[in-house]
Order: sequence, then structure tokens, then C-alpha cells
Amino acid sequence: MAAKAWGGRFDGATDPRVEAFTESISFDQRLAAVDVRGSQAHARMLADVGLLSTDEGEAIVSELETILAEITSGEFAFRTELEDVHMHIEAALIERLGDVGRKLHTGRSRNDQVATDLKLYVRDSLDTIDALLLDLQRAFVSRGETDAGTLLPGYTHMQRAQPVQATQYWLAYCEKFNRDRGRLADCRRRLNVSPLGAAALAGTSLPIDREQTSAALGFDTPAANSLDISGDRDFLVEFTSALALVAVHLSGWAEEWILWCSTEFDMLRLPDAYTTGSSIMPQKRNPDVLELIRGKSARVIAAANGLLVLLKGLPLAYNRDLQEDKIAVFDAIDTSIACLELAPAIVTSATLNTESIAARIEEGFLDATALMEYLVGQAVPMRTAHETVGQLVTLCESTRIRLADLTLDQFQEACPEIGSAVYDVLGTANAVNILQSQGSGGPESVAAALAGWRKTLGLD
Amino acid sequence: MAAKAWGGRFDGATDPRVEAFTESISFDQRLAAVDVRGSQAHARMLADVGLLSTDEGEAIVSELETILAEITSGEFAFRTELEDVHMHIEAALIERLGDVGRKLHTGRSRNDQVATDLKLYVRDSLDTIDALLLDLQRAFVSRGETDAGTLLPGYTHMQRAQPVQATQYWLAYCEKFNRDRGRLADCRRRLNVSPLGAAALAGTSLPIDREQTSAALGFDTPAANSLDISGDRDFLVEFTSALALVAVHLSGWAEEWILWCSTEFDMLRLPDAYTTGSSIMPQKRNPDVLELIRGKSARVIAAANGLLVLLKGLPLAYNRDLQEDKIAVFDAIDTSIACLELAPAIVTSATLNTESIAARIEEGFLDATALMEYLVGQAVPMRTAHETVGQLVTLCESTRIRLADLTLDQFQEACPEIGSAVYDVLGTANAVNILQSQGSGGPESVAAALAGWRKTLGLD
Amino acid sequence: MAAKAWGGRFDGATDPRVEAFTESISFDQRLAAVDVRGSQAHARMLADVGLLSTDEGEAIVSELETILAEITSGEFAFRTELEDVHMHIEAALIERLGDVGRKLHTGRSRNDQVATDLKLYVRDSLDTIDALLLDLQRAFVSRGETDAGTLLPGYTHMQRAQPVQATQYWLAYCEKFNRDRGRLADCRRRLNVSPLGAAALAGTSLPIDREQTSAALGFDTPAANSLDISGDRDFLVEFTSALALVAVHLSGWAEEWILWCSTEFDMLRLPDAYTTGSSIMPQKRNPDVLELIRGKSARVIAAANGLLVLLKGLPLAYNRDLQEDKIAVFDAIDTSIACLELAPAIVTSATLNTESIAARIEEGFLDATALMEYLVGQAVPMRTAHETVGQLVTLCESTRIRLADLTLDQFQEACPEIGSAVYDVLGTANAVNILQSQGSGGPESVAAALAGWRKTLGLD
Amino acid sequence: MAAKAWGGRFDGATDPRVEAFTESISFDQRLAAVDVRGSQAHARMLADVGLLSTDEGEAIVSELETILAEITSGEFAFRTELEDVHMHIEAALIERLGDVGRKLHTGRSRNDQVATDLKLYVRDSLDTIDALLLDLQRAFVSRGETDAGTLLPGYTHMQRAQPVQATQYWLAYCEKFNRDRGRLADCRRRLNVSPLGAAALAGTSLPIDREQTSAALGFDTPAANSLDISGDRDFLVEFTSALALVAVHLSGWAEEWILWCSTEFDMLRLPDAYTTGSSIMPQKRNPDVLELIRGKSARVIAAANGLLVLLKGLPLAYNRDLQEDKIAVFDAIDTSIACLELAPAIVTSATLNTESIAARIEEGFLDATALMEYLVGQAVPMRTAHETVGQLVTLCESTRIRLADLTLDQFQEACPEIGSAVYDVLGTANAVNILQSQGSGGPESVAAALAGWRKTLGLD
Repeated sequence: MAAKAWGGRFDGATDPRVEAFTESISFDQRLAAVDVRGSQAHARMLADVGLLSTDEGEAIVSELETILAEITSGEFAFRTELEDVHMHIEAALIERLGDVGRKLHTGRSRNDQVATDLKLYVRDSLDTIDALLLDLQRAFVSRGETDAGTLLPGYTHMQRAQPVQATQYWLAYCEKFNRDRGRLADCRRRLNVSPLGAAALAGTSLPIDREQTSAALGFDTPAANSLDISGDRDFLVEFTSALALVAVHLSGWAEEWILWCSTEFDMLRLPDAYTTGSSIMPQKRNPDVLELIRGKSARVIAAANGLLVLLKGLPLAYNRDLQEDKIAVFDAIDTSIACLELAPAIVTSATLNTESIAARIEEGFLDATALMEYLVGQAVPMRTAHETVGQLVTLCESTRIRLADLTLDQFQEACPEIGSAVYDVLGTANAVNILQSQGSGGPESVAAALAGWRKTLGLD
Repeated sequence: MAAKAWGGRFDGATDPRVEAFTESISFDQRLAAVDVRGSQAHARMLADVGLLSTDEGEAIVSELETILAEITSGEFAFRTELEDVHMHIEAALIERLGDVGRKLHTGRSRNDQVATDLKLYVRDSLDTIDALLLDLQRAFVSRGETDAGTLLPGYTHMQRAQPVQATQYWLAYCEKFNRDRGRLADCRRRLNVSPLGAAALAGTSLPIDREQTSAALGFDTPAANSLDISGDRDFLVEFTSALALVAVHLSGWAEEWILWCSTEFDMLRLPDAYTTGSSIMPQKRNPDVLELIRGKSARVIAAANGLLVLLKGLPLAYNRDLQEDKIAVFDAIDTSIACLELAPAIVTSATLNTESIAARIEEGFLDATALMEYLVGQAVPMRTAHETVGQLVTLCESTRIRLADLTLDQFQEACPEIGSAVYDVLGTANAVNILQSQGSGGPESVAAALAGWRKTLGLD
Repeated sequence: MAAKAWGGRFDGATDPRVEAFTESISFDQRLAAVDVRGSQAHARMLADVGLLSTDEGEAIVSELETILAEITSGEFAFRTELEDVHMHIEAALIERLGDVGRKLHTGRSRNDQVATDLKLYVRDSLDTIDALLLDLQRAFVSRGETDAGTLLPGYTHMQRAQPVQATQYWLAYCEKFNRDRGRLADCRRRLNVSPLGAAALAGTSLPIDREQTSAALGFDTPAANSLDISGDRDFLVEFTSALALVAVHLSGWAEEWILWCSTEFDMLRLPDAYTTGSSIMPQKRNPDVLELIRGKSARVIAAANGLLVLLKGLPLAYNRDLQEDKIAVFDAIDTSIACLELAPAIVTSATLNTESIAARIEEGFLDATALMEYLVGQAVPMRTAHETVGQLVTLCESTRIRLADLTLDQFQEACPEIGSAVYDVLGTANAVNILQSQGSGGPESVAAALAGWRKTLGLD
Repeated sequence: MAAKAWGGRFDGATDPRVEAFTESISFDQRLAAVDVRGSQAHARMLADVGLLSTDEGEAIVSELETILAEITSGEFAFRTELEDVHMHIEAALIERLGDVGRKLHTGRSRNDQVATDLKLYVRDSLDTIDALLLDLQRAFVSRGETDAGTLLPGYTHMQRAQPVQATQYWLAYCEKFNRDRGRLADCRRRLNVSPLGAAALAGTSLPIDREQTSAALGFDTPAANSLDISGDRDFLVEFTSALALVAVHLSGWAEEWILWCSTEFDMLRLPDAYTTGSSIMPQKRNPDVLELIRGKSARVIAAANGLLVLLKGLPLAYNRDLQEDKIAVFDAIDTSIACLELAPAIVTSATLNTESIAARIEEGFLDATALMEYLVGQAVPMRTAHETVGQLVTLCESTRIRLADLTLDQFQEACPEIGSAVYDVLGTANAVNILQSQGSGGPESVAAALAGWRKTLGLD
């Protein structure tokens, strides 16, 4: 017998298709551990305030532990007609403890119970994801030594722009993931107020102690307003939006590395472990993992969108629409974790094709800006310098030479201020070495940044 | 042994996490039947053009049937390292038929195979959904007799506007779902060209017969351009976008009926079978199914968005990102079917609270427009008539009476053109009965529309 | 004085910020022409059914023409307090014609008027966009002769896969845009039913003739159900979703060509007219137009999403939320037109860097599939052939040679079935020339497809 | 003559349609003030480090002031061919100052300039929006006294659930908007690092002082990595996502109040200033402003989505796609501000229809939970109590009475533990008054919360 917890006044049987439609047990099983944690805290509090006897409280706490162990080990049988994980656990409790079990739900509602469970689950997931982001930052930073001294073309508009130390690339991603971690930390702080005890929407006339359960569950304080709590899903939106930006960052990295693995760029090689072949084309080594990481960003973006759409136009307090929130947020969590578990290994195991990179690093006039800034140093107004270098590039292109191949005469014809020291800024190596501004891709700036990151991330 | 189909030139073993990350077998199992259908057509064609012997072709067709039966019955073992359903089936074939099995993939690639499977699966799902939409239309139309003569307030801006026959509501939904069905039909027609034989992206040098496989699989014609075919997912976007609009229509209906079930509207009663209770509030009868239908619209909208995001910025032909398409489209299909399977039963089993509706139908000046049009009939310019009636409504509000309660003197003071016949248009019943324009909510128009729908939907 | 059309019973003045907030005149001015067209048809019908005298009808039709001319020439003054274009035009009419003007709105509501205007406007926009898509298809097809005989690498997973005729690329895009045009045509057909005469939501008691206005405005038939009509915005969702897919197609093309313009791919050159420079890097030639086309896809995708979100959960008939529909759909239209107006010129004016392409076409083992299919032709099972070629590719890679550089001995060691005819399928040119399947990238298939498209698009 | 800043090496003229397509001056004019602020800080720094003479620096700073004044007053002429606001201002500077003007762009790029401008603009907008949210919180709190003692039904699933003090509703919204303000504050802190001096993507070889410009512009510190800075738009995504959640909160409030304004709920009256009428139905008072606020949430949600889609898959550093970011974020800002400017006035000027509310407050068994908790207080296990009350509700429904109408006999028949004190918890007033848990909707809890908010918001 699996009586509905709310069945008191219902005559008609529920259409079995309705049970299948409204159930959430197929996807909220993963809340079992946090649900038990929450119920144990609630039971202890009920005992402390006298709504349960000490024995009753202990019996509930202990039996919940047993039930959780059964769920964890797979012994526990789930039944669609019991709707959700909360009802399964409570029904099992009642089956085993009788009237004592019937008292657990005193002073709470499924609404605050679900909100509490979700917050606990999201908090754990957030911590997992933060740790994975840290792994990924460390992976990028760890390349700093491997790739020391390697120069890469920097691109804007997918056109070669200026050269930078390879490490400047890796640290750029550290910056992005650091902002992501900051957003997660802020989200964690904001969500960390306890819904428990808000009951359905108005609170309760029973003498519960919300401070106690809040503290027991690691929340900073009880949430303030019962009506707000009952339907508040801000934390899911904020969390999933933050994950969407993580996913976008990953997608940009994946795109970049997919391009670098092409025959045309030939700048990066992934180990076999992270590529796959083709069922028809025997020569293929496809960067599937990176492509999937790029593709999966769509899923997290859609999850963030879906949550906002779900909430749009709902009045205060709980509406059953909210059950759908779990689908979106669990998918965003799983997808994020799956991508982030693989990313660090890919980052550390890929190798830059230094030979191939070096062979083509002088293409694309990566030193043009260095030349322009040399002119500025010779007191040529910047816009004039820009135009002059533009003409010199055109001259080079027409004769298929590089800027460093121009003679001093050719330089001086274009601009009399140019002296022979000009050759000290030309060529990619020179153009990188003279970069001196804070945060630039030059050797000193990059070395300082790398050292800073190693310290920040606990790598030294 | 589960050798990769593409393993020829790979040295390094695949990271097991990569297998878990790149696999799709956990969600593409549902393609088994269409995959076998497609492979059988392909094998028969290969035999007909001489790339297989007749015996080889027959052996493959027959063994595929056996494999499918095993999958259907649950005997077949799936292994993550075999990636997807296509590889599972082919690996089983090779295991059983040896070299003959190794010939099945001749002249095709996983790219065209997957595209073919997806089209077959979407075509079947589309037909299922179309049939469910027809059920839903019939459910609405079937209320035509039940609710004959019942008048309902029509609302704009959630304010009472004009009265209509109840059936006008039901047929409005028929219109919406009919457009949905039209979109699905157009989508079906457009997708119904066969990808099979496009191979990886360039076609093949082998003498395959794409016309034959196209016809065998019920496609209208082979798709025209191999490069296009390889990455074309237009049909998924078009299909899911159409489903998103179905979901929006369902969400509007759900919203309306949720409101009508409130204490305040008190216009509709759902049977117990489609409501649930509260874990804390014993008096509740919640329209959960409708709320979930409303909420699930967010999921389908997000799926449509996710597919567009997935495809954005991808170059021609297959990229592994596309594997994610199935997640979105399968979820949209399942969600749509789940909602549409329940909706007709809800529509037919709900009852209008005619007593309660009638008791308040005269509130809100639903006959004000009728009065205004009466004035127009008396040659008062429409804008003047509008203003006059506005003043009369204000007069009524201040004394808490209805328009029909005004005396002829009061009427004539406001507008001398008003005669005693004015009372024939006042009151909700009169205001509905005089509606005469095509498509209006008046009795004749509605009766004609109802008859038309009964015929169109095969109900007579 | 600009009295509100609905001001009859209102005492309090509108907060001026409310006027600014609720106005739509700043963005619906563009509906002036279709609004006048719709009102003229309505006025003629009113005269024909006797709700206006012939003189009144003619006066209105003629004065509306004058007003439209003033709007078109910029003489007409718009005022925020008159809310929208419909009220502006009607107010002007009343100002000029007095009571006759006050009769125009007889038997219609702003709801059906707005729906009619929007449909007329969307229909026109759709036709414009269809014509631009045709231009774009013609631009691609016109490259067929320019690039005849040029071979390009085909990519999957951004890795070189198989070679194809350059024209196969161009025709792949023709296919995509043709499906887009099909979707637009279906959308046009479905939207082409007339809302006019639905009035607010219930129809009218006046003897209007909806067939007449429908025909006069080029609609196929009057829309059937007044309640449905009043809030139906399906046509905007369907139209914008179709535009989102157009935008995704454009984004993929843009991505591909941006990559091809890179130093690394070096396959395409855009004329100066379609590139821009950098404010700091003098050497840059950036494919900005293509980047913007790629980026603008996000805007159209978001517009489609926004419309679905807007409509989600709204009950039947008009709600003021719908006013926002115009923002999204106008932006999608403008963005689509802007991209499509430039795209054909870019397509026709870009040049393939044939020299650079040819210099690297033998990289990446584009003939590996051809070799595998040769083995299949020698009765080697496809999967065995795939593995053999995989090993040969590895052999070539280790010694940095191409497949065609292998000796017959080396071939036969790997697979005794290989004869000297193998060299006839090796090398990119051979690998393309032997492609024979329908829709393939081989010369005959491509030539046939090109001829077909030239005929279909009216280019011969 | 309006030479392109980057024209040095370009031969071909730009297609005029390209100018129209790539321009941003039509929408980035609003950045003029922040652009001048940024350029002045940059010029002062250039003078301090010796890249400009003191006179040059002063001339630039002063001329920029003049130019800004002209822009602000409308005297300044914008020309499409100058692309964006940055180029307009610099071109004007050069026109007026000659070579001195040509030096302003020393050591910076349009990339870091645009990023700086956007951050300054967003920071200002964020502060504006935060202040408006504070206004809105104050508006809700200010109702605390007006509505003191008024009881409202609380709803879950749109069904009457439990009664609360009206103020509990108002404070629930305060909580939501407080979280919004927290998100904005976090966003502000995270964005407040200076992009200036990152130049194109690699930094510069010139001796600029990024600390100085950072401090001068009110940033906390210079951003760390030039490659990251060049394309970082995290702050726009985070900001717009936060605004999307503000919009969702507003949409829920709007939905609630729209319902409350219906004839059926009849709980709230908006002043005429915030409603509008109908063009056809003279009796209507439509809550258009609230409907538009609800609808506009779709626009902000779509903007957040659009930004994520825009960024998805873009490689590091600037790509022209990013220009589109402004469209989305400016629209989200404008829409948010427009809604938030009106919301406080609506909140303060609406009146609760206390008479109508009171007349129906005893409907819907709002005291059922109070009764159940009374039973719990009598040592009845909660689940048993729930069931008992469910049966009593059914009994009441069948005879159309309220719980308080049941006799003590009837109560005791259902549950012997019930005593005559039961009547002290029945009826809505009692049911509210006994609520005692922290954060509940009972009088003490609400009064304490109200006092807290008044203090927090500076209202006392």
C-alpha cells in the first residue's frame, strides 16, 4: 500500500498516467542523501523543542540512516506512485516506525523540504565544480614551464595580430575561470540561507526552531520570508547562469584548440586518448572531445534559458511548474562536471607543435605594431605612424617579403625618422620581447603573472 | 573484444573517461529499430548492385532482424566502449557473420547513417504527435454538445470583455492545434528526403543506388548534396520549433484552466484523477497536471533554443557537436508526447461550474460593446458611441447597477437616439445572441464552426 | 488635444511616464502603409454593407491616402500620447473629417486591426527576404563557372576528410537556403488568413463582410475563430524561427569563410570593400562583415526565443504583453535583411586562392577513402579495408610521404589484393574524379546539380 | 573627408552598404560621455609618462571636453562612414588639433578603449538600476503601514492555501529584489578592473602606466591579462543575467497583480493613471502597464540568451561579433530602467479592496493547516492529523459550511483529541494570529520583519 501523503479528502483514484506524468522519483533520487540530512536535522530540532520525544527523535534519525544506506546500496525499491524521493523516504519511515514516522513532517511542508534539499545539493555540486575549475586552472598554469619561451601568434578577427608568449594564452583562460569561480562563490554565499521551517508558505503555529536546523545544515541563517522561500528559485538561475558562462569559456577554448589541431593551423597535437577516428575515412584523428565540449555549451545555455522561462510570470509561492527546475539544473550540473573532469587532462597532455609554429611565425606581419610603436618613440604621431606602417606592409606584400627584409633606405623613404635601431624591434621575437606594459604578452609580464598564479593556486 | 570501428591507425588507448564522455548509447538506443530498418535497406541495395552477393545480403538482413529482436526484448548487452547504437549493431553483426558483417558499412558512413536514422525516428515521432494533436482537437470538439448554450466571459487583459458561447473557447484551441499540425506536416514533407549514400561528405566511388534505399525507407527522393547532408540538422530545428509552439499553446490553455479552477474564478472543476493534494494543507486540490504542462513548455522552448545554439557557427559537414542534437530533440519529443497523452482526458473530463458561472456572468459589463454597436446602428458615430457607453458604465459603477438596470430616461439623457429596443441587446445572453459576424462567438457562427470541425475531424 | 480613443470613463490623467512606457509609435510607425491599406479596405466594406454611406467611405479612403502621403514624406507629426500608429492615423482622420472619421472604427477593434497590419507587414517582409535568399542562391550558383575544376578539401571535425569540387560547397549552401525558402513559403501560406472583423474577441453584431476585406487585402480567407485571432501570434513565431535558421545557415557560412581568410587556411580572399582594418595594427585585413553576420545570428536566435517566452503562459485573446512582439520580429526582419543584402555581393566578389589551395591539397590524406573503396572493389570487406588503409596512413605519416608515394610492394605487403591500378585512384584529383554516387562531390554529379540549379533559379 | 583610422593599406573603397552594416554610431552614441572620460584619463597618463608633452595632454583633455559638450547639446554631426562613437570623437580631435590629436591613440587600441567604455557605462547603469530597486523596495515597505492588519489569502498552485498578513507579500518582494541588488553589487565589484592599456591583445612596448588610468577612472585595479581583456564580455553576461532575474521577479509580481485586478479576484485597484481603456469595449480598465512589465521580461531573458549565444565558440581576443553585444545589453538596460521607474509608483498607488477581500477571506479553508497543527499540539501524529482534517474539509464541502461551523461533536467524532479550544485557531484571523515561526506571515513575525526592513532601507 502506498497511500498518498495528501490523500485525506480525495475520492477518485489518480489516473496512472498522471502518476507517470507527475512523478519526479526518476530524477530526484539523487537528492536522497541531502533529503535524509535535512530530515535528520529537522527531527533533532523537533525533539529539542518538544514536538517529538527524545526517543522518537532518535528513532527517526537512526531509521533514516538505514533507509539512506539501502538507497545508496541499491536495495531500496522505488515506486512511481510515491511521486518523489521525499515521499519514498517518509513512506518507508512510516512503514517501519508507524506513528513515530507520521510525526516527522511536523512543522514543515514539502515546499520547504524540497527547497532545502535543492540548496544542499546545489551547494555540494557547486563545491565540486569549483574544485574542478581549480584543477583546470592548475593544468593551464602547469604548462607555463613546458611552453616557456614558445611564441604564438595572437589573433583578432581570426587574423594574425601580434605575437605573445604561449603562456599568455594559458593565463588568459585562468583569468576567465577565476571570474567563474568568483561568481560561484557569490552564488554559494547568497544561496546559503535555510528554507527549512517556511512550511507551505505562511510558516507554522508550532514552536519550531529554524535557527537550529539552519546551523545544523551549514546554512548561515534562516531565510527571512516564508512566502518568498516557498517559490524562490533564484539560486538555481544564478547557479545555472554562472555555469552557462563556464560553458561558454570552455566552448571558446575548445574552438581555438580544434582549429589549432587542423592541418592548416598545425599548432597543437592531442594525444590519441582524446581523439577518435572515422567509420569511413581511415586517416582521421578527430578532436571529438573538444567538439563535444563546444557543443555541450548549447545545453547549458539552454538550461539557463529554460529556468528563466519556467519562472517567468509565476505568482509568489510554490507552483508545480517548479518541479521542472530539477531537470534543467541537474543537466547543467552533470554536463559541466563531465566537461570539467576531462578538460584538465586534455590541457596537460596536448603538445604544441613548436617546429611547425616556428616555421610560420614570421607570416602575417605580427611585428607591424612593434614597428608602429617604434615610430611613436621617434615622435611620429601615432595615427601617422599607423598609416606609414600600413604602406610598408603593402610594399612587403607586393614583393612577398617581411618587414625585417626592408632596407634602411626603404624605411627612411617612408619615414625619415626611422634609424637602424628599427631592426631591434622587428621579427616576432623582438616584437614580443619589447612588450612592457602591465598584463602584456611580453616575457617579464608573463613570468610575473605565472609566478603569481602558481602562488595563488598553491602550486609552489 | 570491442574494437573501435575506426581504430586502424590509433596507438594510444582511449581514456576511459573519454568513452563515457563521448558515448551516446545511453540515449540513442531508441534508434535501434530505425537503424536496423536503414541497414536492411542498405544491405538489400548493396546486394542488388553487386557489392554484396545475394546470400550475403540476405544473411545481413536476417541477422539484423535477430539483433533487433534481442534489443527489443532486452537481451542485448550494451557496452559504453562501443559508443553508439550503430556500432553496437554492426559489432554484433560482425561477431556473428564475420567478413560478411564487415561489408555492411560499404558505401556509407556513420554520418549518413545517423542522419537517416534520425529522420526515420523523427518522422515516426511526428506522426505520433500529430495523432495526439488530433485526439486533443477531438476532445475539445466533443465538448461542443456538453457545453452547448453555456456562455462564458471572454477576457482581454485578464479583464472581462465580451461574452461568448463556451464552445468558441474550445474551437479557438482547435484552430491553434490545427496550425500546429500544419507545421508538422510541412516539416514532415521537407525532411522526407534520404540522406543515405551521402557517405562522409563527398559521396562514394562505389556504384550504390540511392534511389533504391530512398524508396525502400519511404523517403520521397534522395537528398541532393553530400556536403549539405552530412551536417544538415534543419529538420530537427524545424520540428522542435514546431513543438515549442505546441508547448506554448498548451501552456496558455493550462494557465487559463488553472485560473478557472481557483476559488476566485470557480468556473471549472477537474476530476480528482487530475489533481493532487498538499503534504501540509489538507484542504488543497491542486491542478498539478496543468501546472506541469505549463512548466514543461519551458523545456521545449529551451530545447529549440539549444538546437539553434548548437548549430550556430558550425562549418559545413559533420562536427561532433551534432551528437548533442539528440538530447534536445528526444527530450522535446518525450515531453510533448507526455503532455499530449494527458491533455485530451483532462479536456473531456473537466466540468464547467455552470451555476457559479451563471451567477456572475452579468458582472463586468460584458454587454457594453453590444450597447455601443446598438448606438452605431442608430447612426451614432462609433467613437461617439464608445464615449457615451463609457459614461453610462461609469454611471452604473457609481450606483452598482448594470447597464440593463438603467431606465430609458437615463439612456436617452446620455444619447437621445436610444430607444426601448435597447433592452433587446442588453444582458449577456442578448449580447451573445446578436453576434453575427463570421467567426464570432455568437450561437449561429459557433454552431456552424462546430459542425465544420466535427466533419473535418471525422467525428460525424 | 489628443483625447484617448478609449477615454470615455476615465477620470484620472495618465501618468506621462506611462505614456512613454506604453507607447509603440516609436517602433510601429513602419506599419503606417499597411495600416492605411487595411483601413481603406475596411472603409470600402463598411460602405458596401451600408454602415457608411458611399460618400463617407470615399472620404475616408481618400483622406487616409493623404495622411499616408504625409507620413511617408515626413510631414506628419507623431506624438507619444497617441500611443501607436493606428491611433495617430485615426486621430488625424477625425480631426479632418469629424464624425465621418469617427465611424471608421465601426465593427473592428484595435486587436484585429493590429493583427491585420502585422500580417500584411510580415507578408511583405517575407517576400523581400525570399527574394534576397534567391539572390544569394544565384550568387553561389554563379560561382559554378568561375570555380569550375577547382578542388577543395572537405572537412569533418575541422579535419581534412575528402576532396570535392569547389562547386559542391556552393551548392550545399543553395540546398540550405532552399529549405529556408520552403519554410518561408509555408509560413506565408499559413499566415495568409484575415484577422479583420474578429473585433475585440467575440466578433460583432454589425453586418460586416469579412470575405470582402479578406479578398481586398490579398488574404486567402477570413480567419475562423474570433477568440483565437485576437491573440494569435503563431505567424510571428513561425516566421522568426524560420529566420533564426536562415541566420544559423549564414553563421556557418561566415565561420567557414572567416577561417578560409586566415593566414593558416589562406584559401579565400575578400575584396577590400568587405574587410576593414585595425586602429592599432596596421597590417590587418579583417573580415568584419562576415564576423558581424556570424554574430548577428545570436540576435535572431534570441528574437525567436523572446517571442516564445513572451507568449508562454498567456491565456486566450489579447493581452498587452503582445505589444512587445513587434520589437522582436522587426529586429529579426531588419537583421536578416541587412545580412542578406550584403551576402550575395560577398559571395560573388571573393576569390579562391587557387594557387595556395593547390599547393596544399595533397596534405591530409584526402584520398584515403578512395583507396579504401578501391580495396572494397577488390573484394576486401569494408571494415578490413578501413583498417588496412589506416595502417598505410600511419606508415606514410611516420615517413612523411603521401599514399601515392607508396610503392606497389608496400601496398601489397599491406594487402595482396592491391594491383597497380591503385595509382589511378590516388591523389586528390583521382579521388574526386572517381566519385560517382548521386549527390556526390565528383565532377559529373556536380555538373548535373549545377545545371539543375541554374535552371531552377532562372539563370539560363 | 572622413578617412578611416585604419585605412593605410587599403586600396579598394568600402562598399557603402558595408558602412551601414558595420557602423555602430547609431547605437553607441550613448557611450560618448564615458569615451571622453576614458580618453581624458588616457591623455593625462600619456603626458605623465612623457608620451605627450604637458601642453599636448592639456590640449587634448580640453578639446575632448568641448567635443562632448557639442555631442550633449546635439550640435555634433554624426556620419555613418566614421563607424562608431570612438572614431567620431578622435576624428574631431584630429580635425581640430592636427598632429596632437593624432597622438591620443598612442598605447591603446579600439579594443581596450571599447571595453573600458562599456565597463564605465555598465557601471553607471548598474548604479542607476540599483537605486531604482531600492526605490521599489521602499515602495513595498511603505505599504506596511497602509495595509497593517489586512489579511490576504496565500496561494500555492493558484489555490487558496494559508492566510498571511498583507505585508508578508510586500516583504517577500523586498527579499527578491534584495538578492537582485546583491547580484548587481557582486557584478559591479567583479567588473571593476580596468581594461585600458591592454591595447589590441598583446599590450604595448610603450611605457604606459595602467595603474594611473585605472585609478583615474575609478577602477580597483588594471585587468591582468591582455589577451583575456581584449574579448572579455563576462561582465555583460553577468549583468544581463542579473537583469533577467530582476525581470522575472517583476513578471511574477505583475502576473499576481493583474490577477488581483480581475473581476474574479477583485482584490486590488490600480489608479486610472496606470490603466488604459479599449478602443472597442467602453467598460474596460486594463492593467496595461503591468502586462507590459510582464511581457518585457521576455525581452531581457532573450537579451541574456543572445549574449551567451553571441560568445559561444568564439576564440580568445576580439572578434567583430562582439560589436553586437551592445545591442543586447543596452536593450536590457533600457527595458529594466523603464519598468523599474514605473513600478514604485504603481506599488504605492494601488489600493487593496479590503471590503471585497474580507467578504471572501473565509472561503477556501485557509484555516485547515491551523486546525491540523492544533491536532499535532494534541499529540496526534502529523500525518494522521492531515488525514483527519482532510475528511473534515470534505464534510464541510458537502454541506457548504466552514470548519468553524462544525460542532464540537462533529470534531470529536472525527478525532476525540479535539477540545473546545479548537475554535481559537479557526477562522482566518485566528489562523494568522497563531503563526509563530521565524519568517512566518503572522503578526509578530511580520512586524519584526517590517521594522527590520524600514531600518535597512533607511526609512526610519
